Formats: sequence, structure tokens, C-alpha cells
Amino acid sequence: MKILSFESSAVSAAVCLTDGTRVIASAFQNCGLTHSRTLLPMAEQVLENVGLRPCDLDGFAVAAGPGSFTGIRIGVATIKGLSFGTDKPCVGVSTLEAMAWNLLGMTGVVSCVMDARAGQVYHARFELRGAQPPVRLTPDRAVAISLLAEEIGQKTEILVGDGAEMCYTKLTEICPHVVLAPSHLVYPSAYGVAMVALPRFLAGDSMTAQQLDAVYLRKPQAVQMREKRLNGGNSK
Amino acid sequence: MKILSFESSAVSAAVCLTDGTRVIASAFQNCGLTHSRTLLPMAEQVLENVGLRPCDLDGFAVAAGPGSFTGIRIGVATIKGLSFGTDKPCVGVSTLEAMAWNLLGMTGVVSCVMDARAGQVYHARFELRGAQPPVRLTPDRAVAISLLAEEIGQKTEILVGDGAEMCYTKLTEICPHVVLAPSHLVYPSAYGVAMVALPRFLAGDSMTAQQLDAVYLRKPQAVQMREKRLNGGNSK
Repeated sequence: MKILSFESSAVSAAVCLTDGTRVIASAFQNCGLTHSRTLLPMAEQVLENVGLRPCDLDGFAVAAGPGSFTGIRIGVATIKGLSFGTDKPCVGVSTLEAMAWNLLGMTGVVSCVMDARAGQVYHARFELRGAQPPVRLTPDRAVAISLLAEEIGQKTEILVGDGAEMCYTKLTEICPHVVLAPSHLVYPSAYGVAMVALPRFLAGDSMTAQQLDAVYLRKPQAVQMREKRLNGGNSK
Repeated sequence: MKILSFESSAVSAAVCLTDGTRVIASAFQNCGLTHSRTLLPMAEQVLENVGLRPCDLDGFAVAAGPGSFTGIRIGVATIKGLSFGTDKPCVGVSTLEAMAWNLLGMTGVVSCVMDARAGQVYHARFELRGAQPPVRLTPDRAVAISLLAEEIGQKTEILVGDGAEMCYTKLTEICPHVVLAPSHLVYPSAYGVAMVALPRFLAGDSMTAQQLDAVYLRKPQAVQMREKRLNGGNSK
């Protein structure tokens, strides 16, 4: 089963073409350029390099959130277009669950963290079981970094995700046993997206382009400010 | 320090652009197409995607062997060209050492294996020490799979490389504790090439294009046959 997967929920962007659990081709970049400029060209290159077209694939997967609002919108919009254009199914997966798969082969507890600004991170915790799929321990949520520090305390946890380095710096005094994931595995990967999506495709638990939606967890900053204003708090 | 690294020593091909230990962009493919068709276009795409040109880089690195004779020649020739064209230094690293870096973050012993045909594998063994660099335990060599099976015996070893699946199938009866590396880390990676090359660049232990050479470990099949013929064994 050939799936093209997208990861654009944070600063980095990634595309991965898999056949079952095997990687046929992948591309990654983390240079600060906007995903609207990089994501689709990367997908085109990945397919062109291996001589395939979108209609040759069995489905499309995307990290549907949480993460950067703009990044997620670009990723979700791109696979909606591909799915609608080819009439092939699509699947949206948790960004945090996908990145836990980066550390497949390792054991221990991993905290998947994305920078949610305003002193918060998007966070979920998974148990790594070597070659077995990661097991979810907590739901996706937005949490204050100070609260996360209390939760982790003296425990040993691996940090992965675009918020990992920031968290590591902030947590390391209070949580002396946090460990940063290896640098080639620390950023969200499209391979992880594919691995979370694969069993859903196989179980027929996929969607049409129309059904797919982003999962933001929080309202965008602009909406929060507008609501605050409408509620009278800071209206001029 | 920005390095562009190439891995084309087996069936897969990979390019990675790093700045220190950080991945800026990467591309990988494993679809059976010849590297002479795929490697340079992948490098061009990686650089174009992040808005850099070869002359913007500090050096070039390549998996110089052991591995497929043709694959290595293509990789070495490509970075010789880039190095000569830009007047920037280059480094050739052991293919086997580079792939041990795929498993950075894990602990245990890893056997890096590449299919050398005729019942042999190219092999080297490394100790994985979590976030610390892998430590070499044995030199690169060509070895019979039957001899490798005797060596491993009842020990626990992780198998990585393009020969890993083949070895796993052949060894698993005699060596019940061999484990296959996770599927997204099992193939040689250009990131590993960069990580082996980086300290050599930093120490000034790099080369000019003219100095760089491939490391084959064995003579090509055609040369072996010619020598056999000249030595009288099978001459017509």
C-alpha cells in the first residue's frame, strides 16, 4: 500500500512515500522557509524521482495537528487537494503521535512537545517499546511548561519534537533526567505520519477530502483576541 | 559548518545537508533506479529547496566504501566534481561506520552489514552508547555470513544496513537474539556520513578532490576473474 505522507505542523517540512512500512523516498527540510513554498515542490520531487504520479498512490496522510495553525492548514489543504484530485482516501493523524514513531527501536518514556507559545507546549506522552508501536500514555493537550516540569520531576523522559530543545533548556534544572532525542530524529517526520496512518488505511478507517479536518486543540490567537474584545474586556 | 553528504553505496541513495549536527535538508530514495540518474538531481533539489548553491557550503562528504562498486564510484565521482568545482575540501568515510550513526540514541551492539554477494557481507561492529558517538569494535572487512553467524552465536546484536534483512533471514535460526533495526533507520543514511565526517573537517583532516579515493575492500568481480584467468586457472 503506497501512501504519500506530509508533515508541516512546525518549522520543518517533510514528505515521505512509503509502501507498507518501507520507505521508498523521503524529503525533509528545516530552513525556515514557508511551507506554502516548499511542501508541494518537495512532494513533486519525491514522486518524480521514483517515477510515480499522485494517481499511482493508494492514499494520502497528514499530520493534522496540533501545531502551527498556518503549517497545519497548508498540510491539510495540500492533501485535501491531492485526495480530491485523485479520488483516493486520506487520513489525518496526531502530530504528537507521529513524532513518537521517530524513536521506534528505543525503550523508555517519550514526551512529544511542540512550541505552542505563551509559555505552553502541545504535549503527549508515549511509552517506547523497542520494535513495537509506541503506546499512548496521555491525550494530546496544550499545557504550561511549568506544569509539565512538575509532572516530569525526577523521572527519566526523552524529549522529541520542535519544542524539545526549548523544553530541554527550560526543564533541565528542575528535571535533571530529561534527555534530548538524537538530532536526526528530534524533528517531526513524515515517516511517523505514515506509520500512524497505515493501520487506519488497512482497517478502512480513512476519509474523503471533504471529511478531513485540522485539529488545533486551541483557538488561533486572532480568534482568542477577537472573542476577548467582543466579550468587552479590552474593546476600545 | 555546512556540509553536503552523499550515500550511494548500496541500492538506496541519500543526500543530506547539515550545519554542525543539525539537519537543514535531506532526501532519500530506495526505488531501484540507478544512482547515476538520481544522486545529483537529489543534491540539486536539496540545495535549491533551501536556497543554497554548492559554493555556499564548507565541504562535501561521501560514503567511500565498502559497498557496491558502481554506487561508490558514482558517489565518490560526484563529490570529487563538487569539491574540485568549488575548491572546497572533501572527506570520504566508512559506509559501515556511517550507518551505525542511524541508531544514535539506542544502546547495545550493532552489526553493520552490506550485501557483498557470493555468501559474504561487508561487516563492522559498533557499540551504541545512547547519545554518545558509536564506538568501533571491529574493522571493516568482507566476511562469510556463516562465519558471522558463528561469531554472533547467542549474543544480542542489532542488524543495520542494506544487508540487514538478508542477514536477519539467514542468521535468525542460529542466532536467535539478532534484531532488525527499525525500518526507517535500516538503510544507509547520508546523515551518518555527515556525522563521521564532521570531526574530521573540524580537525582539518579533510582532502582535496584529487586525494579522495574509494575503499573497495575487495577487488571487483571482473578484476578477480581476469586475475584468475591470467594465473592460468580457467584460461581458455
